[in-house]
Amino acid sequence: MTPSFYDVIVVGGGISGLTAAYNIKKRDPSSSVLVLEANDRVGGRTHTVPLVAASGSDKWDVGGQWVGSCQSHVMDLLKELNIETFPQYHEGKHCQRIGGNKVKSYKGSIPALSVFALLDLHIAMVKMDYLQKQINIFDPWSHPKAEEWDAMSVANHFNKTLYTKDARETFDAALRTVFGCETNQVSFLYCLMYVRAAGDLEKLIDDTEGTAQEARIKLGAQQISLELSSRIGDENVKLNEAVVSIIQGETDVTVTTKSGWQGTASRVVLAMPPKAIETIEFTPSLSRDRVDFMKRMPMGNYIKVVVTYEKAFWRSDGYSGMFVSSGFPLEKNDGMAAPLSVVYDATSANGNPALLGFLSGQMATEWAMRSAKERQDAVLEHLAQFFGRQVFSFLDYLEKDWNREPNAHGGPVSYMSVGGMQNFTHAIRRVEGRLHFSGTETATVWTGYMSGAVEAGERCALEVLNHIKPNALTQDDVQQLEEQKKARQSIGVRKNKRGRGFFRTMISLSIGVAALSCAVYAVAYYLELEVQKLIVLP
Amino acid sequence: MTPSFYDVIVVGGGISGLTAAYNIKKRDPSSSVLVLEANDRVGGRTHTVPLVAASGSDKWDVGGQWVGSCQSHVMDLLKELNIETFPQYHEGKHCQRIGGNKVKSYKGSIPALSVFALLDLHIAMVKMDYLQKQINIFDPWSHPKAEEWDAMSVANHFNKTLYTKDARETFDAALRTVFGCETNQVSFLYCLMYVRAAGDLEKLIDDTEGTAQEARIKLGAQQISLELSSRIGDENVKLNEAVVSIIQGETDVTVTTKSGWQGTASRVVLAMPPKAIETIEFTPSLSRDRVDFMKRMPMGNYIKVVVTYEKAFWRSDGYSGMFVSSGFPLEKNDGMAAPLSVVYDATSANGNPALLGFLSGQMATEWAMRSAKERQDAVLEHLAQFFGRQVFSFLDYLEKDWNREPNAHGGPVSYMSVGGMQNFTHAIRRVEGRLHFSGTETATVWTGYMSGAVEAGERCALEVLNHIKPNALTQDDVQQLEEQKKARQSIGVRKNKRGRGFFRTMISLSIGVAALSCAVYAVAYYLELEVQKLIVLP
Repeated sequence: MTPSFYDVIVVGGGISGLTAAYNIKKRDPSSSVLVLEANDRVGGRTHTVPLVAASGSDKWDVGGQWVGSCQSHVMDLLKELNIETFPQYHEGKHCQRIGGNKVKSYKGSIPALSVFALLDLHIAMVKMDYLQKQINIFDPWSHPKAEEWDAMSVANHFNKTLYTKDARETFDAALRTVFGCETNQVSFLYCLMYVRAAGDLEKLIDDTEGTAQEARIKLGAQQISLELSSRIGDENVKLNEAVVSIIQGETDVTVTTKSGWQGTASRVVLAMPPKAIETIEFTPSLSRDRVDFMKRMPMGNYIKVVVTYEKAFWRSDGYSGMFVSSGFPLEKNDGMAAPLSVVYDATSANGNPALLGFLSGQMATEWAMRSAKERQDAVLEHLAQFFGRQVFSFLDYLEKDWNREPNAHGGPVSYMSVGGMQNFTHAIRRVEGRLHFSGTETATVWTGYMSGAVEAGERCALEVLNHIKPNALTQDDVQQLEEQKKARQSIGVRKNKRGRGFFRTMISLSIGVAALSCAVYAVAYYLELEVQKLIVLP
Repeated sequence: MTPSFYDVIVVGGGISGLTAAYNIKKRDPSSSVLVLEANDRVGGRTHTVPLVAASGSDKWDVGGQWVGSCQSHVMDLLKELNIETFPQYHEGKHCQRIGGNKVKSYKGSIPALSVFALLDLHIAMVKMDYLQKQINIFDPWSHPKAEEWDAMSVANHFNKTLYTKDARETFDAALRTVFGCETNQVSFLYCLMYVRAAGDLEKLIDDTEGTAQEARIKLGAQQISLELSSRIGDENVKLNEAVVSIIQGETDVTVTTKSGWQGTASRVVLAMPPKAIETIEFTPSLSRDRVDFMKRMPMGNYIKVVVTYEKAFWRSDGYSGMFVSSGFPLEKNDGMAAPLSVVYDATSANGNPALLGFLSGQMATEWAMRSAKERQDAVLEHLAQFFGRQVFSFLDYLEKDWNREPNAHGGPVSYMSVGGMQNFTHAIRRVEGRLHFSGTETATVWTGYMSGAVEAGERCALEVLNHIKPNALTQDDVQQLEEQKKARQSIGVRKNKRGRGFFRTMISLSIGVAALSCAVYAVAYYLELEVQKLIVLP
C-alpha cells in the first residue's frame, strides 16, 4: 500500500515532470515521490505508436520527435538513460511550394526563391537574430522595447521588415510549424524570447547538424518517459489520475484527482502547460499575474500525419523527402490541396520508409472540420505534388490531432497572445508557496522543446530538494540554484533605452537599397513591355 | 419530483439564459424547461448586494448596472417585468487625470484637454465610427480589410491615428473600462464589431441620454434575473449545479453536473461566456472553429468598488462624481495612487449616497496582488485626489473582484485576442446538433451588455421553439428567424476591396494639416523661448 503522504507529488507525467521526479530520486533515493498523470500513458506531448511497416511493423512518433546536439539538456539525459539517436535524413533535393502553385526543388539550405526574396529572407533572419540576442531570457520584459514588441504580432514585424511575398510565406510556413498558430496571433516579444532560448532562428527551423531537427530517437521519443518512469519505479507513477484540486495548507499540500484519490505532499511540482493548469482549482488561488498571463497563452493547433511505405521512392528519385508549403485553404488555392506546412522523411531507425507532415495553425482548424477521408485524400494529394502518384500506395496512414488528445489542449506548444507578456516574466517560474512550476513552457533554454522540458524538470528538482533535503544537493546544484536566484533578483530592472544602433541602421539601409533596385528594375521591365506592345501591336 | 427529461435545459442562470427560458415558457407554457446555474445565485455578471447606507441599509450593484434607452432589448424586457429605472447622475463638473498628475475638471461632454488633444480625440472618434459602420455585424470577417484589422490590436490602430498623448490616454482609460483589458490585447476588428453592435463609440463610453450608461435599475440589476426566475418558476432553476459534461445522442442530450445530477433534454441552450463553455466536456466535441476562437477569447480583469457615504459631498461641491484617470501603476506615477480607471456617482434610487469605481485591465492584476488594505487605501487616496479628504469618512466599502467570482473567469466581458477573429463569424451563433449558443458574447446588438444578453436569449428561445414547438411561434417570431437565417446564409461572402474613399482621405488630410500646424506652432514657440533666453540671459 502506498503511503498517502509523499515528499513530492509531481502533476504531469510528460518528460518534464518525470525528469523532475527522476532527479529528486537520483539525489535523494529515500524520498517518496509520486507522479500523477491524467492520461493513460506517460510521455505528454511525446507519443510513439506502432504502424504497419515494410518489415511488418515498426514504431513512429506522432508527437515531439527531434533532438539536436545543440540541446545539451536532453542530449545529456539521453546519454544517461542509454537512449540512442540517429540522424534526420536530409540528403538530396528539398522541395517547396511558396508563393503560388509552382513546385520547386533545391539542394542545400538555400530555398529556390528569387534573388530578391532570398536577400529579403536573409536580412530578416539576420535582423531577427540581432533583436533576439538583446533579450534577457530570464526577463524579456526588461528590454526597453518590450512593450512595443509585445504589442506587435510577429506578422506586424514581418509587415514592416519583409518586402517580398515569397520570403513572407516562407517565414509564415516555418513559424506556423514552430508554434502551431498563425504569425498574426503570436506576440513578437514572445517569439524573440523563444528564438533566444534556442540560440538562433536557423537552429529552430533547420534540420541539419547543430539544429533542433538534427536527430531522432531510435525507439521513439516516448522512450524517454518510459525509461524515466521505470527508473523512478512504475509503481510511483499513477496513470488516469487527472488532478482537479490543490489545497495548500500550513505544512503540506493536498492533491485531489477526478477519481477521488487524495494525497498530501510537502511540495508539488506542476509539470504541465498553462491551459492544463487552468483546469485545476487552487486554494488559495494562484497569484494574479500568473492567472493573467495563463489566460492569454493558448496552445497551438497541430495535426501530425505519418504515412509508411514499402520503399523510400522519394530517395531514389533524389529527394530528401523534405518540403515546405504555403499551405493555403482549398478555396484560396485554385482547388489544389495544400493542407501541410512541412513534410520530412520519417524512415525509421530500422530502415522502414515513411513520410511525416504537419497540419498547423488555421490549416489544422479548417481541415479538422472535414471528414477523415477528405483530410487523408488532401494530404496524399499534397504529397503527390512533390513525390508523384506513388504516395498513394502507402502501407499505413495515421493522423494524430493534438487538439483531440485528452488533456493536451492542442499542440505543439503554448504561445503568448499579443499584449500578454507583461506578467509572464515575474510569474512563469516563481515558486508559489509549496508549488513549483515545470513544463517546457517554463524553460529558459529551448523553451517549447523536449530539451526545455528536461531543463525545467531539472530546475524544479533542485528547487524542491533545496527545501526538503538541501544536503542531497551537490556543489554544482547549489551553484545552479544561486545563479537562478541571481537571475530572479534582477527581474524587473529595465535597461535604458538603446539607440537605433549602427548595425540596425546598416540593415535598414541595405533593405532600402535592395527595395529601390527592385523597384527600378520592375519599372524598367514594365516600360520595356509597354514599349514592345506599342511596337508589336498595330 | 422533477422529471429527468426536459424539453430544454438551459446552462447558465444569468440574464441571457433566464431570458431564453422565460421566452420559451412564455410562448409554450406547457414546455418543461430547466435552468442549471453553477453559482449559488442567479444573475451571472449582475449581482446586487446590501451595504450600510445613510438610511441604514440599501442595495448596490457590484456587477453590470447600466441600461440606456438606446438598448431596446433590455428596455422592453424591463417594461414587461415592471422593473423601474432611474437616471445616472451626471450633473456638475466631471473630473479627469489624463497625461500626468494634474487633476482637471470640466462641464458637459468635452474633456479638459488641449485643443490639439481634443481635435485628435474627435477625429479618432469620427474615424472609428466611419470604420465600424462598414462592419457587417453578422459577419465581421467579410470586410475586405478584416484580416488586416484582426492582425492589429486597438493600440496598433491608435499608434497610427492618434497624435497626442492625452487623447491616447483618454481612449486607453475608456476602452480599459469597456473590455477589462489593455488596448494592445484586443483585436481591432473585434473592437470595431463591438462598437458596431452598440451603434457608435459615444453611446458605448458616455453617460448622457441615449448612451449605455444612461440609467440604472432601482432595485439593482440582479432583479432582472430574480424576476425572470420567479416567472419561470424558481423550482425550475437549480442553483449550485455546475455542468461538467454534455453528451449528444441520437434523440436527446444528456447533461451531467459536478454533483452527479443528470438530466436529458431535447435541446440545450449554453448561456455562458466562452471560458465557461471550455470547462465542459462535450461528446462529440464542439466544432473545431468554435474551439479555435474560444481559446483566443479570454475574459477581462475587473474589480468593481462601491463606497457608501452619509452625504453626497461631491454633489454639494459641484461635482458629478464622474472621473476618468490614466490609472498608471504606482511606480510609474511618482508614487501617486491611481488604481481606478473610471468613477461614477452611485447614489441609490432611495437617495443613499455612494461612489463606484473600476480597477480594470493590468491595473486590476497589479492591485489584486496587494493586500485588501493596501488596495482600499489606494482607491480612497485616488478618490481623494478628486473629491477631497471626505472620501475617507465612508459608511461602507465593498470590492468585487470578478476574477475571484466562482465560474465567472473575469469581467466584464470576453474579448478577442489579436488574430482570433477568422473562425468567430462562422461559429459564434451556429447551432451544433442540439446545442444552441446564448450569452451576451453571441449578441449582434449591444454585444457584451445586459441588452445583448437579452437579445441573445430571445434569439435562442426562437431557435429552440422552431425545433420543439414551431406552432408556438408568432408571425413576428417566424420573420425574425427568417432574417437570422438570411444573415447566416450570407456569411463568408467577402465584398470586394474598397478604395481609400473620399471621406478617409479627407480625414487623413485634416489630421495631416492639424499635425503640421502643431509642429509649426511648437517650433515657433520653442524658437521664441530660445530667443527670449538669448535676450534675458547675459
